[in-house]
Amino acid sequence: MGIRDAAFEVAEYRSRLAQVRAAMDTAGLTSLLITDPSNMCWLTGYDGWSFYVHQGVVVTHDADPLWWGRMQDVAGALRTAWMAPDRAVGYGEHYIQTPDRHPMEDLVPHLSGRIGVELDNYYYSAKAHAVLDHAGLDLVDATGLVNWCRAVKSDAEIAFMRSAARISEAVVDGMAERIEPGVPKNEVVADAFRDAIRGVDGAWGDYPAIVPLVPSGADAAAPHLTWDGRPFERGEATTIEIAGCYRRYHVPLCRSVFLGEPPDEMKRAEGALIEGLEAGLDAARAGNHTRDVAAALNRALNKVGIERTARCGYPIGLSYPPDWGERTMSLRAEDETILQPNMTFHFMPGLWMDGWGLAITESIRITENGSAECFCDRPRAMIVKP
Amino acid sequence: MGIRDAAFEVAEYRSRLAQVRAAMDTAGLTSLLITDPSNMCWLTGYDGWSFYVHQGVVVTHDADPLWWGRMQDVAGALRTAWMAPDRAVGYGEHYIQTPDRHPMEDLVPHLSGRIGVELDNYYYSAKAHAVLDHAGLDLVDATGLVNWCRAVKSDAEIAFMRSAARISEAVVDGMAERIEPGVPKNEVVADAFRDAIRGVDGAWGDYPAIVPLVPSGADAAAPHLTWDGRPFERGEATTIEIAGCYRRYHVPLCRSVFLGEPPDEMKRAEGALIEGLEAGLDAARAGNHTRDVAAALNRALNKVGIERTARCGYPIGLSYPPDWGERTMSLRAEDETILQPNMTFHFMPGLWMDGWGLAITESIRITENGSAECFCDRPRAMIVKP
Repeated sequence: MGIRDAAFEVAEYRSRLAQVRAAMDTAGLTSLLITDPSNMCWLTGYDGWSFYVHQGVVVTHDADPLWWGRMQDVAGALRTAWMAPDRAVGYGEHYIQTPDRHPMEDLVPHLSGRIGVELDNYYYSAKAHAVLDHAGLDLVDATGLVNWCRAVKSDAEIAFMRSAARISEAVVDGMAERIEPGVPKNEVVADAFRDAIRGVDGAWGDYPAIVPLVPSGADAAAPHLTWDGRPFERGEATTIEIAGCYRRYHVPLCRSVFLGEPPDEMKRAEGALIEGLEAGLDAARAGNHTRDVAAALNRALNKVGIERTARCGYPIGLSYPPDWGERTMSLRAEDETILQPNMTFHFMPGLWMDGWGLAITESIRITENGSAECFCDRPRAMIVKP
Repeated sequence: MGIRDAAFEVAEYRSRLAQVRAAMDTAGLTSLLITDPSNMCWLTGYDGWSFYVHQGVVVTHDADPLWWGRMQDVAGALRTAWMAPDRAVGYGEHYIQTPDRHPMEDLVPHLSGRIGVELDNYYYSAKAHAVLDHAGLDLVDATGLVNWCRAVKSDAEIAFMRSAARISEAVVDGMAERIEPGVPKNEVVADAFRDAIRGVDGAWGDYPAIVPLVPSGADAAAPHLTWDGRPFERGEATTIEIAGCYRRYHVPLCRSVFLGEPPDEMKRAEGALIEGLEAGLDAARAGNHTRDVAAALNRALNKVGIERTARCGYPIGLSYPPDWGERTMSLRAEDETILQPNMTFHFMPGLWMDGWGLAITESIRITENGSAECFCDRPRAMIVKP
């Protein structure tokens, strides 16, 4: 397979496979069914928008991974995955979106032994599990097993993220420049998409796993609103949350843009947020814990009376919709993961206050020595356009 | 709630609620847990990119729908849903993406009686179901219950789709114009995104539930490949599959663009495909069956020796990633749904052949009398650029 330009060397995929098999050993698994498209791509290279139907990759200890999916998508597997062509099998079209039968019935003969499944995943439905369970298979929860293998990035992955970071900077720069009173929001988002997909310096832009989130004014208290056609208004802050994406690797970046003169309350919050970010970056060192980053941030915020309960970051890298996080550890008080070099996070201490929001964030790499490295190089401040 | 510009009148949401309650009665359900973001939005107006965490809407017979989700997204529910503010409840941040506890534990007290769940849905994981089941709730499969209620569109929904269709036309026109030998594919996609989000004549563009699919040459045999930075080449066909989207309502449209002189094999297939489309449009009448459309298409394709096994269409309307189809009926031989006025479909007879692909499609509305109405007004032919 792999007729198209492969993202990584086969040796890198084989080393990932060895890592997954070691984790399977630890968990006592004979085989592993992966349905998370990010995990499928990380392990096999498979890249296509086919995750709206049931599909998966089966990992065992004695054969290369098996790609399994809809018959018409085998062609995509043959063109993007590194395994030999006989390691891709398809199920018939009569299984597609019908209550009479379920695609998982076709997968049963390919599974045996003690089988790990990604029990808490968008792309592993309760029905899919019920069908496999009904067939008498021995299924155990392996949610996050592959996600955890992805936590420490290879140098090749870091290089992809550096390309993504250039795209993130270009997108935020463009949006900050174009946000003006009276300009319809969708027009700014349209240009942001264009910048994101055109890419930067030969790094073509891939689609991010989340669309730009650009709430303004009181809406910015709601972190996951997208956009509409209404114009930006003077006196309002707009939160920009975007990610550049290169070959499925993401580097998120947020900045708030204020049109006019920000109120004192927001300026005080900005000062504490910047201090907290700096303290957090300093705490984000190999050997420290994820919770140390959250603690450093919160100390600064507490000084101005801001009690922040949400986590302040999550691991990032290869992703498909609907999330660009890796869903393993988090930067928060109760998380005790030890930081390692080449772990990568979106350090995201967004403030969603009563009637306004503020976000200044950094995507970071844990370094071998010293404080975290920021992927993007942009001023750590609210963007004020008077 | 509903501080932002509501998409529909409250009366329309109430009429949808009545429809869902009637379907619940038929199914013997006391309550219904909806986790499909399309169903959530259709019933409540809720619109945010928060479906990467667990959330849902609970429908009962005696109170307005209850929006339930992450605490920080309550603000988004308050701004976009029509119900009173006390009908939105949030769970704490400590439930987010941790193996120690699961958000569904927080939902249990809000559920009672015989509860329908969307068992085969992207956003209802096997784990979510296991948590509710473990709590001793009486859960039954209600996959598709709300989706079926969405099948026949209101006039207001059709109006949104007409706006989306104008966007679809603009996107395909732009891509067809810009696809030229030597132009990197991502640049054409970048401009397509820009056109899609800018919108047309005051209809601002919303994000489509699937990104543009633009495979070229031999890759076009694989329907779900997205794009990369390589240039278009003379002598190749590129399949454009896109959808314009207005306020979450989609109108997909596909055309193939050939750079150079298409081979005879492709021209023969094109002729049969156009004949099949016309026959299918004529068969797509209220009172006929979904299978009649597939049969009409296949008769024309069989004449030139093309045996097409995939379904040739699916219902469309309001959607969130990862699919712009409604996942109820399909246009295919074994589907016996009776067509009704204001049902809407993407009539999508894509050909994925050995070494090339061809797609000419129409999004259609079943009319009160006569053959189907096409949402878009574009020549039904391969676009050849010599």
